[in-house]
Amino acid sequence: VNANADDLAIAIDLGGTQIRAALIDRQGVIHIRCAEPTRATAGPETVIGQIAALAAKAREGFDAKRIIGAGVSSPGPIDTMRGVALAIPTLMGFNDFPLRARLEGRLGMTVALENDGISAALGEWRHGAGKGISNLVYVTVSTGIGGGVILGNRVLRGRQGMAGHVGHMSFMQDGETCACGNRGCFEAYASATAFTRRAIMRAAADPATRLGKTSEPIDAAAVFEAARQGDGLAKALVQEEAQYLGQGFASLLHLFNPDVLIMGGGLSNQFDDLQGDIVASLQSSAMPAFRNTPIRRAALGENSGLHGAASLIFEGA
Amino acid sequence: VNANADDLAIAIDLGGTQIRAALIDRQGVIHIRCAEPTRATAGPETVIGQIAALAAKAREGFDAKRIIGAGVSSPGPIDTMRGVALAIPTLMGFNDFPLRARLEGRLGMTVALENDGISAALGEWRHGAGKGISNLVYVTVSTGIGGGVILGNRVLRGRQGMAGHVGHMSFMQDGETCACGNRGCFEAYASATAFTRRAIMRAAADPATRLGKTSEPIDAAAVFEAARQGDGLAKALVQEEAQYLGQGFASLLHLFNPDVLIMGGGLSNQFDDLQGDIVASLQSSAMPAFRNTPIRRAALGENSGLHGAASLIFEGA
Repeated sequence: VNANADDLAIAIDLGGTQIRAALIDRQGVIHIRCAEPTRATAGPETVIGQIAALAAKAREGFDAKRIIGAGVSSPGPIDTMRGVALAIPTLMGFNDFPLRARLEGRLGMTVALENDGISAALGEWRHGAGKGISNLVYVTVSTGIGGGVILGNRVLRGRQGMAGHVGHMSFMQDGETCACGNRGCFEAYASATAFTRRAIMRAAADPATRLGKTSEPIDAAAVFEAARQGDGLAKALVQEEAQYLGQGFASLLHLFNPDVLIMGGGLSNQFDDLQGDIVASLQSSAMPAFRNTPIRRAALGENSGLHGAASLIFEGA
Repeated sequence: VNANADDLAIAIDLGGTQIRAALIDRQGVIHIRCAEPTRATAGPETVIGQIAALAAKAREGFDAKRIIGAGVSSPGPIDTMRGVALAIPTLMGFNDFPLRARLEGRLGMTVALENDGISAALGEWRHGAGKGISNLVYVTVSTGIGGGVILGNRVLRGRQGMAGHVGHMSFMQDGETCACGNRGCFEAYASATAFTRRAIMRAAADPATRLGKTSEPIDAAAVFEAARQGDGLAKALVQEEAQYLGQGFASLLHLFNPDVLIMGGGLSNQFDDLQGDIVASLQSSAMPAFRNTPIRRAALGENSGLHGAASLIFEGA
């Protein structure tokens, strides 16, 4: 890979609900960005076609010689050492599927493939809330919980590039069923999905709450809004969510001893309302030596993964 | 550090119950080994005196010029970047104590300080069950649970060298009280201490078991022996222990994606009786892509930490 200041990378963030594409330069400037809903049940051929079409759209009008590769963030678990999707729960048909080779053939350029948690961590490290930091844990709290870890200025990948699946720490014996099929995972308690499910269940049983009493659906944003307006159930739900997050984050501090833990994903939009209780939970769950680790909100919003994908091309995997 | 084949290192394994010292060469041969009970409540001055006396004993009769430094494994959490013991729960008075500087003064040589879990992981990596492996998680299951991780041929240390405290993953909401002061840690369920506590409690309530019915005390070895002889309660206790270990190990596979997970510590003496149920538990707790990771018994027994401490001197920290 040469290091021309004019270089551009195509970045693809393949998600279970959306595919995002962007054209990004070495400085992290996004020149073009486009997205469309993922045809998640249509099988790999269709999804690869969607990716190719978005990539074509992103590069349209730019000199092909400037585009030095495509970085692709994908839901895991993906063996990024071999470039093979082992089994993507959110995308039908991606089982033992040679994703990197197929994308390289279709896009006609070098493709670097990365698990989505690691990709977002990379993005925040290179251009976001983790810039210049040597040791960081990134946790995305959204439909599920994912993450990625940088320690000693190196991305932790492990044997197959599948390290950092922080949502699937065993969090409760015989606990709630998780999307991964197991029980009691951190994700099954602290994801936005779990949060909303608790809200819907408890609102139905609580005559005092305003949640569910209007035509407004009960989603995460509605619960936070009700909590800000003093709704008792909503406040308790927010506090409980923060407590789960703090306990999970405490585990991650003990395991990785980072300079900072960065929270991203949809629920990080409510970071200001969660932070106090997350820190309180951390203070009671972490050993004293680990308690002063700052918890910070991700800076790149929905673009963390795109920036990370591009950085695979610019910085090397 | 020069690289003379004649070089020797003093290795110290400071534990809550014993201090071990050894003189080890570059090839991992232990020339001298000695130990004494730790005067754990007598304060740092006394303990440093014990270490110095054991180090003097270990080097006695060897040419001082061959001894290039001392590696010290210590219970954590220790900030090994600064060489400061932050607070060692098992040793009285080691709070914000400049352990490395004080040892260097007393021993009159370079001292490399390492958290005990990382030190044992290093020992197994250099000379034991992890030799030649690029990605490994080491877990010691003993009075407590500790560990250390090597990924991409690098030791994970994090900001203060305190990464790898695997015993303090949050394992159960509002669960058993842990020695660290928190509740529901992995250690509070799966350590040898927790195992023995369960055995004593349940034996008292079970007229059918032979455990506790003789003059023999109920310790881990007695439970495993009874299980081998067909005792129903003992078999159930062993299976439950293996299940907890498997669930905790599954979390570690998701977080680190190692080539192998190595189990050491006192309970690994019973590895053959645990392995089947650990693997069964792992199979049901780990996501499919992670399930084929081998679980292996540590090879160096009580000397893992000593070998790791010596390797700090030979290989560099």
